[in-house]
Amino acid sequence: MKIVTISREFGSGGRELGKRLADVLGFDYYDKEIISVISQSQGLNEDYVEKALDNHAWQTVPITFRHSFGAAAVMSTPQISLLLEQKKVIESIAKAGKDCVIVGRNADVILKNYEPFRVFVCAEMEAKIKRCMERAENGATLTRRQIEQNIRRIDKNRARTCELVSGEIWGSPVNYDMTVNTTEWEIKSLAPAVAEFAMRRFGGKNENPVI
Amino acid sequence: MKIVTISREFGSGGRELGKRLADVLGFDYYDKEIISVISQSQGLNEDYVEKALDNHAWQTVPITFRHSFGAAAVMSTPQISLLLEQKKVIESIAKAGKDCVIVGRNADVILKNYEPFRVFVCAEMEAKIKRCMERAENGATLTRRQIEQNIRRIDKNRARTCELVSGEIWGSPVNYDMTVNTTEWEIKSLAPAVAEFAMRRFGGKNENPVI
Repeated sequence: MKIVTISREFGSGGRELGKRLADVLGFDYYDKEIISVISQSQGLNEDYVEKALDNHAWQTVPITFRHSFGAAAVMSTPQISLLLEQKKVIESIAKAGKDCVIVGRNADVILKNYEPFRVFVCAEMEAKIKRCMERAENGATLTRRQIEQNIRRIDKNRARTCELVSGEIWGSPVNYDMTVNTTEWEIKSLAPAVAEFAMRRFGGKNENPVI
Repeated sequence: MKIVTISREFGSGGRELGKRLADVLGFDYYDKEIISVISQSQGLNEDYVEKALDNHAWQTVPITFRHSFGAAAVMSTPQISLLLEQKKVIESIAKAGKDCVIVGRNADVILKNYEPFRVFVCAEMEAKIKRCMERAENGATLTRRQIEQNIRRIDKNRARTCELVSGEIWGSPVNYDMTVNTTEWEIKSLAPAVAEFAMRRFGGKNENPVI
C-alpha cells in the first residue's frame, strides 16, 4: 500500500496539490471526508468539528495549562478528544489498505509505521496572500493585512497541534521526505512532478504513467 | 540556460547528489572547481581558500563586530574578500551560459536573477553521522560525538555565511524550490528523481531523458 501525506502552509495550494496528486496517481483522496466521519461518529456538527480541529483548537487551552500538566489533563478538553477521534479515523483509513493521499491532520506522524511519502507544501507569503484573495468568495471583505494575519494564525495552530501530536517541529524539512515551494508553480503542473518523485520513492513505476 | 543549485547540510549527501544530477542531466558541474579558480586568481593555497570559505570563515570575526559595524568594516576581513571573489567566479560561470549544477557557495542567492532551480538537501542527524563515518578515510579517529559536533559547527558556518550574503535564513524551505530529505534514499536513485522534477520546473523535457 502506498500512502502520500500532504502537510501544508495555509494558502500554499497544498490541498489542491493533494487532490490533483490523487487524480494523477489514481489514489483515494482524504481531507474533509475525515471531518464528516468524525462528526457522524460523535454526533457533532461538521462545521464545529472542522473549526475545533483546524482553526480554534488552541484558543481555549491556555499555554500554561499545556506546558504544566500531563497528557491526561490536556486531553480533557473537547478539542483533544476530537484529535484522538481523528487519529482513529486516519488509522482506519490506513488499515483499509488502499493507496491514498491524505491532506493535513498530522497523518504523516499518525501513520509513520506505514512509511508514507511525506510532502510538505510551502510558498512565499505574497504568493499565499494572492492565492487566498483569488479563491475568496465574491463579496469577501478581508484586507490584505487580515489575510496575512489569518495565514499566520492558522499555521501557528497547525504547528502547535503537530507539536502536541508528534513532539516534532511542523514544517522542519527533516520531518518530511520532500518539501515543495509552490511560489513559481501552477499546481496543475506541479502535481505530476510530485507524483513521479513519489513513485520513485515507493520504488516502482506507477501503473498509470503520469508523463 | 538552466542552472541547478544545491545547498546542503553537511553529511546529507548533497555533494554526491549534485555530481550525479550533473551526470544525469548532462550539465557542467561546479564545486571545488570554484575554489581552484579563486586560489589561482588570488595566488593563495587551495586548502587555505577552502578552509577560509567553508569551515573557519567566522571564527576570526567576533559576533559583536559583525553586528555592530557596517558592511565596509565587515568586508575588511580576508575571508570576506574571498567571499566576494567567490561571488565573481560564480557570476562568471553563469555568464558563460552553459547549463550547470553548482554545489554550495550560496550560488542560489548570487544567481537569483538567472532563476536557478534551487535544491536544499537535508537528512536526519543519525543518517548524516553514518554517512560521515562511511566516507571517513581509513585511520580516521573521530568519535560519533565529534562527528556530530563537526556537522553542527559546519552547518552553523554555512547558515551564517548565507545570512551575510543574502539576509535569508539558510535551510528555510521557502528559500528553495525543493527540499529533499535523503535519509531514506540511495543518492544514486534520488538523482534521477530530482532531475525529472527539475526538468519539469524548467518547463521542458530533458534532451537526455533520465528514465
